[in-house]
Amino acid sequence: MKKIEHIGIAVKDLEHSNSLFASLFGEEHYKIEEVKSENVLTSFFKCGPNKIELLQGTSEDSPITKFIEKKGEGIHHIAFAVDNIEAEIERLTKEGFRMIHEKPKKGADNKLIAFLHPKSTNGVLIELCQDIKD
Amino acid sequence: MKKIEHIGIAVKDLEHSNSLFASLFGEEHYKIEEVKSENVLTSFFKCGPNKIELLQGTSEDSPITKFIEKKGEGIHHIAFAVDNIEAEIERLTKEGFRMIHEKPKKGADNKLIAFLHPKSTNGVLIELCQDIKD
Repeated sequence: MKKIEHIGIAVKDLEHSNSLFASLFGEEHYKIEEVKSENVLTSFFKCGPNKIELLQGTSEDSPITKFIEKKGEGIHHIAFAVDNIEAEIERLTKEGFRMIHEKPKKGADNKLIAFLHPKSTNGVLIELCQDIKD
Repeated sequence: MKKIEHIGIAVKDLEHSNSLFASLFGEEHYKIEEVKSENVLTSFFKCGPNKIELLQGTSEDSPITKFIEKKGEGIHHIAFAVDNIEAEIERLTKEGFRMIHEKPKKGADNKLIAFLHPKSTNGVLIELCQDIKD
């Protein structure tokens, strides 16, 4: 794992939170992207080598809407950048970690992603992400 | 804010979690430090330009013990590296953010730190930290 690629934060109202995090960082978000397969609207802020991803659910059955119902707004996941996501999934599975996605899938921000199950990682939802080469 | 300095993760059993996160990163923690003023035992892992700080409460009234009782194990806070913590506290206060610490205090890992109140930051507990120059 090369670095923290981003931290995902679940929010109720993306417009309000975009303004809040712009005040926090002293800089506006650089991108809005809808991930239809997950029913989420995302917004990205840069912070040096890292990013913050705000996530708003776009339907009642969105994982973000359900997360907020259960736990309230707040940190949803940590994503780590990896060079080779398939090799990393294989390594972690051998180490005994449980994957939510055993095969990488297309995520926001031009990445291949896979999540680990938080039951095997002290309650922390962890995402692996690898840049998709053009 | 220059980068994510670290992510703090609340754990029940530091020894167990050190072993778990060593498997995750493929690398052992590089430091254990007790912060007596906060009743926490911490352990640090490197991940490129970022760190992961595991936190175990050392008493029943530790903020970490209380956090785990209420929310379970998991991500506790995000810390951002800043060059000048006093100037950043002043800027954020003017922007309307509520500080838990209006003056910086000594934290783990040779840092001056100050926390923002999560009520003003979408439920996210945010720490500012500045290196203490020797």
